Amino acid sequence: MTTQLPAAKALLFDVFGTVVDWRTSVASQVAAALPSTVDSYAFADRWRSLYQPAMELVRSGRREFTRLDVLHLESLRTVLAEFEVTLPEETVVDLNRAWHRLDPWPDSVDGITLLKSAHIVAPLSNGNISLLLDMAKNAGLPWDAILGAEPVRAYKPMPDAYLRTADILGLAPGECMMVAAHNSDLAAARDCGFQTAFVARPSEHGPRQTTDLSAETDWTYSTDSIIELAKKMGC
Amino acid sequence: MTTQLPAAKALLFDVFGTVVDWRTSVASQVAAALPSTVDSYAFADRWRSLYQPAMELVRSGRREFTRLDVLHLESLRTVLAEFEVTLPEETVVDLNRAWHRLDPWPDSVDGITLLKSAHIVAPLSNGNISLLLDMAKNAGLPWDAILGAEPVRAYKPMPDAYLRTADILGLAPGECMMVAAHNSDLAAARDCGFQTAFVARPSEHGPRQTTDLSAETDWTYSTDSIIELAKKMGC
Repeated sequence: MTTQLPAAKALLFDVFGTVVDWRTSVASQVAAALPSTVDSYAFADRWRSLYQPAMELVRSGRREFTRLDVLHLESLRTVLAEFEVTLPEETVVDLNRAWHRLDPWPDSVDGITLLKSAHIVAPLSNGNISLLLDMAKNAGLPWDAILGAEPVRAYKPMPDAYLRTADILGLAPGECMMVAAHNSDLAAARDCGFQTAFVARPSEHGPRQTTDLSAETDWTYSTDSIIELAKKMGC
Repeated sequence: MTTQLPAAKALLFDVFGTVVDWRTSVASQVAAALPSTVDSYAFADRWRSLYQPAMELVRSGRREFTRLDVLHLESLRTVLAEFEVTLPEETVVDLNRAWHRLDPWPDSVDGITLLKSAHIVAPLSNGNISLLLDMAKNAGLPWDAILGAEPVRAYKPMPDAYLRTADILGLAPGECMMVAAHNSDLAAARDCGFQTAFVARPSEHGPRQTTDLSAETDWTYSTDSIIELAKKMGC
C-alpha cells in the first residue's frame, strides 16, 4: 500500500498510550502515594480526563502556551480535592512527576531501536521536553531528538504542532510519518500531509476500552506493535 | 576541586570545535565541491569568520531569530563571490549542508557515551536542530536530546541561551554543566550559574591557533578530551 510514497525520513511518535502504558504506570504510583481507600485506576482515569480540557484552553488561545507539567499539576490538585485527599506539597510535586516515569509497552524499546537504524525517531507528543527526556532515560527509549509541543509551542491536534515539527527537521510533511494509537491524531497529521502509522493499543484505557480498538481508515500502515511496524517498513 | 558542588545532572556541549572538527571537515567538502585552485582551508576559515557577525545581527535585535542553516547559506554565497566561484544552485545548497556532516574528534563519541551513563547529555550549540540531528546520525553522537539556540530562540553567549535551556530541562542552572573548548562560552555559562568544563582543542583553528589553547581560569574541570572529563567525573 506504500509503494507510491517516498520512504519517510522521520518517524514521529505519539507517546502517551502509543509508546508508554500511562494508565497502569500512573495508577501504580497513585497507589503508592495515596491511601489504600482510593481507587488508583479511577484516580488515574480522572486525572487523565482533565488532560484535553487543560490543553484546549491553550489551543483556543484563551491561555498562553503552558508546559504540560504545569497543566498536569493543576489537574492533580483538582483531582486530589475531588477525592478529598490531602498530601504534603512535596508528595504532590513528586506524584506529578509520575508522568516522567511511565513504563513502555513491551515492544516499544525494541521497535523504536529497529526503526532508528533507517529513520530519524523522535516523540511528537504533547508532553514537555523534560518529561519526555526523563521518561526516555528511565525507560531506555532511544530517541534521536526530543520534539513535540514544547519546541513548537502548539498542542496537537493543531496543525502547527505537525507542520512546525516538519519545518524544524528541514523535511517536507510527506517525508514525516506520525505513529499513533489514536485515529484522531493520525487524521490531523494526514491533513497536514504526513504519512501515518496506526499501532493498536486496545488496553490503553483498561479492559473496557471502546475507542481506537482498530484503524478507522486506510492509514499508510496499520499494525499491532511498533516491532511489527518496523518489520513492515523493512527494518 | 568539585567536592563542594552538587553533581551536574545535565552536561550541555558546545559542538563546533568542542565535539566536532569543523575546519577539517568543511575544508574537505569544499575541496570536493570547488575547483582545485581554491585553497579549501582558506575558504573554510573565511566562511567560519562570518559566523559571529551573522549571529550578532540576531543577538542585537536587528534581525529576528533566524536558523543557523540560513545564516550559513547567506555567508556561503558571500564567500563564493569573494573567491569568484560560481556553482550550480544545487551544489551550493548541498555544500551548505557540510555543517550537517562534520566529523567528531576521536574521543567525542566514546566520551559522550561514558558520560551518558550517569548524566543527561545534549548539545547546547548555536547550530539548528536538523543540523545537529543530521550530524548526530552521521557521526554516532548519542545525545539524549537536541537542545541549543533554536528551541530557545537565542544565540550564545546571550544569557537566555543558557537559562532557557536549564528551564526546559527543569533544572537549576547549578545542576547544568557547560562543556566547551572556548573560554568565552564557559564564562557566559558561569555567569548564568552553570558549572563548567573546558576541553582543550588546540588544533580547532589549524596549526597556527593562538586562542583557547588552555583554560584561562579555574573552570569546574579542565581537560584535554571528553573521555578524560568522563573519567574525572567518575563515569
